Formats: sequence, structure tokens, C-alpha cells
Amino acid sequence: MANKDQTHRLGQVLVVCAPSGTGKSTLISMLREDFPTFGFSVSYTTRKPRGEEQDGREYNFVSRETFIAMRSRGEFCEWAEVHGNFYGTATAPVEKMLGEGKDVLFDIDVQGAKQLKKVFYKGNFIFLLPPSREELVRRLTGRGTDSEEAIAKRLANADGEMAQADFFDYWIINDDLDTAYEEFKAVFLAGRCKPELRPDVEEQLKNWGEDG
Amino acid sequence: MANKDQTHRLGQVLVVCAPSGTGKSTLISMLREDFPTFGFSVSYTTRKPRGEEQDGREYNFVSRETFIAMRSRGEFCEWAEVHGNFYGTATAPVEKMLGEGKDVLFDIDVQGAKQLKKVFYKGNFIFLLPPSREELVRRLTGRGTDSEEAIAKRLANADGEMAQADFFDYWIINDDLDTAYEEFKAVFLAGRCKPELRPDVEEQLKNWGEDG
Repeated sequence: MANKDQTHRLGQVLVVCAPSGTGKSTLISMLREDFPTFGFSVSYTTRKPRGEEQDGREYNFVSRETFIAMRSRGEFCEWAEVHGNFYGTATAPVEKMLGEGKDVLFDIDVQGAKQLKKVFYKGNFIFLLPPSREELVRRLTGRGTDSEEAIAKRLANADGEMAQADFFDYWIINDDLDTAYEEFKAVFLAGRCKPELRPDVEEQLKNWGEDG
Repeated sequence: MANKDQTHRLGQVLVVCAPSGTGKSTLISMLREDFPTFGFSVSYTTRKPRGEEQDGREYNFVSRETFIAMRSRGEFCEWAEVHGNFYGTATAPVEKMLGEGKDVLFDIDVQGAKQLKKVFYKGNFIFLLPPSREELVRRLTGRGTDSEEAIAKRLANADGEMAQADFFDYWIINDDLDTAYEEFKAVFLAGRCKPELRPDVEEQLKNWGEDG
């Protein structure tokens, strides 16, 4: 178990939501690079594999019937339908990783985060914010690659997500990348210090004084 | 307001408890040095000033009657009687500092922490642990300055505090000082990202979209 933390700490759930244009992917990459403790969860989908995609690697490709059966058995901690296809994360493999001391990061939209909260209510729910709406507009239009319509859609989505910011445990404002990353990393490191991740210490405390 | 954070963030309450021999003072000094955002709260006491102590600097020196009157008006967020003298922290000045964006750190015993929880229930309650009881015994005896009786008393106190570790939000095990400080700092930095400290962002979110 190469990824098992030598302190026998359990893994933590980090849920990260952000409107497009807040640097979410960059921050997540930085954290994954700094901490090799993250496990990778392979989602289930009913869409067909594309190109080089392999079953069990990019996704677990399943039939609509299988997906619906899994869903009715409550096996997903979150699922969504996008363009007629189902996507979902099975709870059991995530719980297995957490038990092995691997952290699990969900990069997901607010609706998905709300579903995850019901299963992983002790997870750390993080919302990344742009410094202002003006700045968000600037970032979205500044890419120069998107059509006006696509930008308008992203902005409307962003507005919808910003309206749900109160749901989250932590707000990180990505004005300066280094500061935002310092805070993101701090939420992760602080999360590791929660007693519920340390059954080994609980055990030590139970026997405290009996060894002296 | 030199100490006011330019982001208009409110201050946070950090409560730090630790058995003697866990490096609490060192860690607190390091944090105060790194972050000039901490305010200093001057406690009230009924004991007489000693040496160079000045009223309002080391302590607010008050009569027993004044202390008891303040206590009965509920003005203290924590108080204790030690060797026949009363000691207490007034809530109002702490709340004033928090409103000004100054963080407030309480270096206190578990009984004091439990009192603080009732007033500052949104604070971050941190417990520092030694890596093991054997190591704690080693550290307490290793000082070489204390009598056997004093060591036994410290150890008994430590045992009593360890039994209450479950009360806290965060456990930081001080095995390696650098790691412990990284975690301590992380709890502080993560604490700053809690939405309740950002009424300025709340305000911005209320008007979100109206400026575009």
C-alpha cells in the first residue's frame, strides 16, 4: 500500500466547486502534485467510449439499464444526466480509498456537491470565487477562444453558482494565484487534523496512562 | 487601524490547549511572528500587581467585588480561580478586536476552552498532542529543572487533559516541530476562509449580477 499514510490517518473528502474562470483546474493540479496521497475515482457513464478511452480507465462504461439499477440500489454518491447520458460516482470505491488513507477530491458543480454532502457530510466543501464579477467577465472574454454565446452561457452558469456560495464551508478568492493556493492547501492540511481521521490516535487515547 | 486586514475580513478566534511538554508556547510564538493580525487581550485579575506590572498592560487589576459584579453581569467569556485569585477575559474587547479584523488567540486549559466554546462557538479549537505518553514523560523529565513531585503533577494534569481531547476540532501531534507548525498555520489560514468571516463578500454576492 504505497499510498498509505504512515500515520494511519484516514483519507479526507475535498469537494471543489467554482464558476468557470476562477482557476480551479490550476489549483487542483498544484495540490495533486504536492500531495501524492490522492486516490483517483473512476466515474460510471452510459455514454459510448470515444477514441482511445478504455473501460475502467477514463470511465466505467455501462448500459443505461445497469446505471439505473445501480442508482436505484443507492450505489452512487452523486450522479447527473448530461446531454442524454448518465454520469455517476460509486460510493463504495471512494470509501475504500478513504479507509486506505487516500484523499479523494471531487471537482464538481454545485448540484453534485449538494448530493455529495448527504453521503460525505464530514468532507470539506470549498468554493472558489473570482475577485469580482467584472474580473470574471474579463477572464471569460479574455480567453479569445469562445464565441459570444458561449461566454454568455458561462457567465449565466457562473451567476447561478455564485448564488449558492453559502452552501460551502470555505471560500477561497482567487485574486492572486499564490495566495489562493496557500489557502487551498491550508484547507486540505487543516482537514487532515480533524479527529475523525485519526482512529489510531483515538485508540492511543483510550489506553492513555495504562502504559505508564 | 493599522492591523485591519485590507480584505475587510473579520478576525477569528483560535483556542489552543495542550498538556505541558507539547511545545505550545513555541508554536504560538511562531504563529504570532508570522501573522501580525493578532490582537492582544488583557485579562482581569483580583491578584495584586507584582514588580513592574502595570494596570491595563499585564492585567486589568480589579477588586474582588468588581470581578464578582462583572462575572454576575456575564461579562467574562472565561474565568477561573487560581490559588484564591480570580482571572477572567472580558468578552466585549475580544468582540471589538474581531470586528476590526484582528485575530484572537487563547492559550488556555481545557476547562477554559469549554467556557469559550459557549461564547465563541465558531472559533477553531485546537488540541496539541505529544506523539506518545512515553515521549511526554521523556520531555517532562528531560528538562532537568523540575522536582519529581512537580513532574508527577504535570503528568497527572496532562493525563487529565488528554482524556478530554475529543472536545476539540483539530488535533495536532507535535512529533516534528516543522510539521506541527505547518498544520497549526494551516488551521489558522483555513479558518480565515470561513464564510462567516467575510461579510464583505456576502455583500458582494447579494449584489452579484446587478453590476453587469
